Amino acid sequence: MTMAIELSAQVSALLKAGVELIPAIAQDAQTGEVLMLAYMNYQSLAITLETGRATYWSRSRNELWEKGATSGHTQKVISIALDCDGDALLLKVEQTGAACHTGDHTCFHTSLGDQ
Amino acid sequence: MTMAIELSAQVSALLKAGVELIPAIAQDAQTGEVLMLAYMNYQSLAITLETGRATYWSRSRNELWEKGATSGHTQKVISIALDCDGDALLLKVEQTGAACHTGDHTCFHTSLGDQ
Repeated sequence: MTMAIELSAQVSALLKAGVELIPAIAQDAQTGEVLMLAYMNYQSLAITLETGRATYWSRSRNELWEKGATSGHTQKVISIALDCDGDALLLKVEQTGAACHTGDHTCFHTSLGDQ
Repeated sequence: MTMAIELSAQVSALLKAGVELIPAIAQDAQTGEVLMLAYMNYQSLAITLETGRATYWSRSRNELWEKGATSGHTQKVISIALDCDGDALLLKVEQTGAACHTGDHTCFHTSLGDQ
């Protein structure tokens, strides 16, 4: 059923021409913690806007990936913003459970050092 | 002189094999606001780690880009973290002035709607 959801012409026009996969940052809407970076194609963005559930494009599996569909660690989308040149997205989300498949709350848990 | 700075073997080993351009999220270290997303190659990451000044790879100009080198809107790096699969970076920074070339504090100023 979700296959029928398409991105509106209005939103498509805001995206940078020629870009098929858009990096999407998921940020905890309450704490401000950056949780993960994944990618969206037009269809996954359309589904996310339509359903309010963060849905990405899995580059490794080459398929739509509703975050938490198997783990239960879903992301309820609070807001979505596009950057100034139309090629990056910022999602503020309510994260259920851990964002990272390792069980960590955030995927950014490998420090390369404090400056 | 910066041409001589190379990424350490230790850090290189943490990065996902075969990835040349790594998306790097800049987040305001104090407020938690996500400011921008840009890209780093190995050299710009090495320079950033060495100097503490956020330095990216400009995909449009095909050159190293020290953020703020012309605008004065520099980013002092407080910490850098890599994500779980080694293909995205999160920089916490002290942003001088606006992060966005439009004069906005953040590049993510085009709302696609609240859910």
